[in-house]
Amino acid sequence: MMDLNADLGEGFGRWTLTDDEALLSVVTSANVACGFHAGDPSVMRRVCALAAERGVRIGAQVSYRDLAGFGRRAMDVPADELAAEVAYQIGALRVFAEAAGSTVSYVKPHGALYNRTVRDAEQARAVVDGVLLAGGGLPVLGLPGSRLLAAAEEAGLTPVREAFADRAYTPEATLVPRREPGAVVEDADAVVRRAVGFAVDGRVEAADGSLVAVAARSLCVHGDTPGAARTAARVRTALEDSGVTVGAFT
Amino acid sequence: MMDLNADLGEGFGRWTLTDDEALLSVVTSANVACGFHAGDPSVMRRVCALAAERGVRIGAQVSYRDLAGFGRRAMDVPADELAAEVAYQIGALRVFAEAAGSTVSYVKPHGALYNRTVRDAEQARAVVDGVLLAGGGLPVLGLPGSRLLAAAEEAGLTPVREAFADRAYTPEATLVPRREPGAVVEDADAVVRRAVGFAVDGRVEAADGSLVAVAARSLCVHGDTPGAARTAARVRTALEDSGVTVGAFT
Amino acid sequence: MMDLNADLGEGFGRWTLTDDEALLSVVTSANVACGFHAGDPSVMRRVCALAAERGVRIGAQVSYRDLAGFGRRAMDVPADELAAEVAYQIGALRVFAEAAGSTVSYVKPHGALYNRTVRDAEQARAVVDGVLLAGGGLPVLGLPGSRLLAAAEEAGLTPVREAFADRAYTPEATLVPRREPGAVVEDADAVVRRAVGFAVDGRVEAADGSLVAVAARSLCVHGDTPGAARTAARVRTALEDSGVTVGAFT
Amino acid sequence: MMDLNADLGEGFGRWTLTDDEALLSVVTSANVACGFHAGDPSVMRRVCALAAERGVRIGAQVSYRDLAGFGRRAMDVPADELAAEVAYQIGALRVFAEAAGSTVSYVKPHGALYNRTVRDAEQARAVVDGVLLAGGGLPVLGLPGSRLLAAAEEAGLTPVREAFADRAYTPEATLVPRREPGAVVEDADAVVRRAVGFAVDGRVEAADGSLVAVAARSLCVHGDTPGAARTAARVRTALEDSGVTVGAFT
Repeated sequence: MMDLNADLGEGFGRWTLTDDEALLSVVTSANVACGFHAGDPSVMRRVCALAAERGVRIGAQVSYRDLAGFGRRAMDVPADELAAEVAYQIGALRVFAEAAGSTVSYVKPHGALYNRTVRDAEQARAVVDGVLLAGGGLPVLGLPGSRLLAAAEEAGLTPVREAFADRAYTPEATLVPRREPGAVVEDADAVVRRAVGFAVDGRVEAADGSLVAVAARSLCVHGDTPGAARTAARVRTALEDSGVTVGAFT
Repeated sequence: MMDLNADLGEGFGRWTLTDDEALLSVVTSANVACGFHAGDPSVMRRVCALAAERGVRIGAQVSYRDLAGFGRRAMDVPADELAAEVAYQIGALRVFAEAAGSTVSYVKPHGALYNRTVRDAEQARAVVDGVLLAGGGLPVLGLPGSRLLAAAEEAGLTPVREAFADRAYTPEATLVPRREPGAVVEDADAVVRRAVGFAVDGRVEAADGSLVAVAARSLCVHGDTPGAARTAARVRTALEDSGVTVGAFT
Repeated sequence: MMDLNADLGEGFGRWTLTDDEALLSVVTSANVACGFHAGDPSVMRRVCALAAERGVRIGAQVSYRDLAGFGRRAMDVPADELAAEVAYQIGALRVFAEAAGSTVSYVKPHGALYNRTVRDAEQARAVVDGVLLAGGGLPVLGLPGSRLLAAAEEAGLTPVREAFADRAYTPEATLVPRREPGAVVEDADAVVRRAVGFAVDGRVEAADGSLVAVAARSLCVHGDTPGAARTAARVRTALEDSGVTVGAFT
Repeated sequence: MMDLNADLGEGFGRWTLTDDEALLSVVTSANVACGFHAGDPSVMRRVCALAAERGVRIGAQVSYRDLAGFGRRAMDVPADELAAEVAYQIGALRVFAEAAGSTVSYVKPHGALYNRTVRDAEQARAVVDGVLLAGGGLPVLGLPGSRLLAAAEEAGLTPVREAFADRAYTPEATLVPRREPGAVVEDADAVVRRAVGFAVDGRVEAADGSLVAVAARSLCVHGDTPGAARTAARVRTALEDSGVTVGAFT
């Protein structure tokens, strides 16, 4: 069983970005932006309504407060402020999820907050504190081996491990940093093949050609370009053709 | 029985404004800013914790998105956007109210949104739509005779009428606009006397000297200056000395 | 002689909107967003550099402070605040224009501020005060007959009248409001024909079929969709084929 | 000769912070907030007018874009974005300085940007690039030995060394970090004595009791509390009584 998650609702006001319609036909979990890096209240409402209609689970894609930088600039936010900011975003999204007859089912940090909490134990703990503040004991989606998932587990929350079909891996099963050449797998065939590899074999070919084990319960696909949304659809079809059940984690 | 409400948590980041500690010893209902005109997540969290601790009810003080103007500049926000913005704010606050063991018990628009929805039926309806979206059927606090309270009632929500002890009234029982001389009652003795008049007689002396009836279930007091917080405390004492039970509406 | 102006640089952070490259091959005046409705500093810098390189004049497209509403929501901003906000935006843009070897040559209000200052004399005067504050005696681009151009003229600034090739006109030579059917001329051939009509005859066919005189020194074209940018290019070609010199106002 | 500088105009909208009136009677250089951590256009305009009237020089106190964190949270802003953001702020302030008959005479980073550019060569260079973009070859105020001043000098800008009368120093002449005990000198007498020491002897007593040399052309005083503003006034008097000429750097 493999979950497919994608970032959705990343427009803001007049601006659009993600192809929410297309992605909601593909994924089982929608990481909905909550207004801090993208996602105004109208977008959040619309995406939640669509997701609920199609039976796609809604997760809070929480971020640093950074519209100008799309949440991609790491910030030294004090732990108590960060926890409150995370809880604020979850609460705001919950209103729209519940109005649509669904609920917020998990939390996934966005961009720089995701990357920072791989190694920064204090911010990882702050994000988890925000999740606890928000109530409901929500699962936390993150990178296997990250401080974030460790902090979630320590706090009694369910850590959900995810893999990236379009990112290169090191032999140590971490992501090759974006600034390095080859960090992003552009070839759609390769993305599809790697997705199946994660799901069927629990392995991926690392940048040095070796095979590394990556235990993932969810696969992240992207949809901020037309090509990416099409590749995401192919990933789902290939998983199903390989006998993998595509379904949300519980 | 008279409720006392005040605006609280109107700081933001480094800036403080309202004397939250002092006001929470006086009021029975706290209108907590939700981040759109004031009130960052850390402030919201702290004020909710204090209010819950002291048994003061928490209300969402929703606003136009306007930090630079402190929500005092009327905006032509389309109805569906306004409804979503109102719901967003309620949801965000609810997280902190519930984390403190309390809940969001009512909604009161702030500043320009409050004034605009006295007469603007479309925005009044949009605010009510936002309250409905947020769930829980929350009561709406507003001016007697306002479009806002009419829209709330029409939607099946409880309208709660409030009076202002420190504002001048016209003979028609509406507020004298702020830009006119004498619009704000500065004299603390007069404020206290008028508060008792609302509670005991259901009347206030209008700007022309006539007595007008004002049916109010809640009295709004202010606390953004040291003097105002002291006057608020005197209002409560005077009400109790006059045999008025000070207590939240239900 | 006819100037062609268009809104440019209306992206923000991760989001893009206007096809700046395409439009800069067409227009003689670039209305550059200054950060209040769109346009972060990096976008402003890039657009100014491109405009200067191609000899396109740079204007400050000033707006209400409203990223979430893209400056399309009218706001009751007090006159002195509005003047300061306008000056702030002009100053910020000037840095990038001058760094590129050009300068800010004119001012055009955006969206709701443009529409509001057609009739609101106080805000019109506030915008002009902001232009005066910013120094340099910049010309102001606006609708013929608007309060804005009247205020500019009264203050000794050059008012520049503009026409819209893709908007329907009333028999009184005002724009048909956007919410009415037929307000926007969608057909590219009609847009091109009307543009030539403004430039050659100083007239346009109104919504009722009558011909009305519109004296314009600049034509506004749009470029926020691929089709719009292509139509803008056709407008320029048609003007030149009709013997109209396309050139900036002075 | 010693310059006295202070942060001014750090209100925003409804909120006030610094006692601008009091400080402008004391300092010779005003670091005016430019809207990114504090300082809306109306505040900027008012402070520039007051500073010009009193002959106090105006500097741009540039910051990360972080109103919610008051610019105190370090951010990983890419160099080209940071340079553009710095230039934007200088340009915006310049309008108000020039409208008041003065000009922007120097640049000083605020809060986290100040601290980060002590050691981060890339961001230091980005700030300097922003200063260069803004034109006018403005001097840069910073900590002796910082990367910021090194980058300024390398770029042909004048580095201006400053000292802090109310901060503890290490034996290596760097500031004791704020989170350590004793980092801030609270005692007004000690602040005054240290200020005179910097100006007369070029030395200060470090945290371990040793005397360290600190070559400073400007002294930073604070004014965000009533006590601080009074201490700043005492510093000026004490300097003058010690025969030190208080005057701006050139």
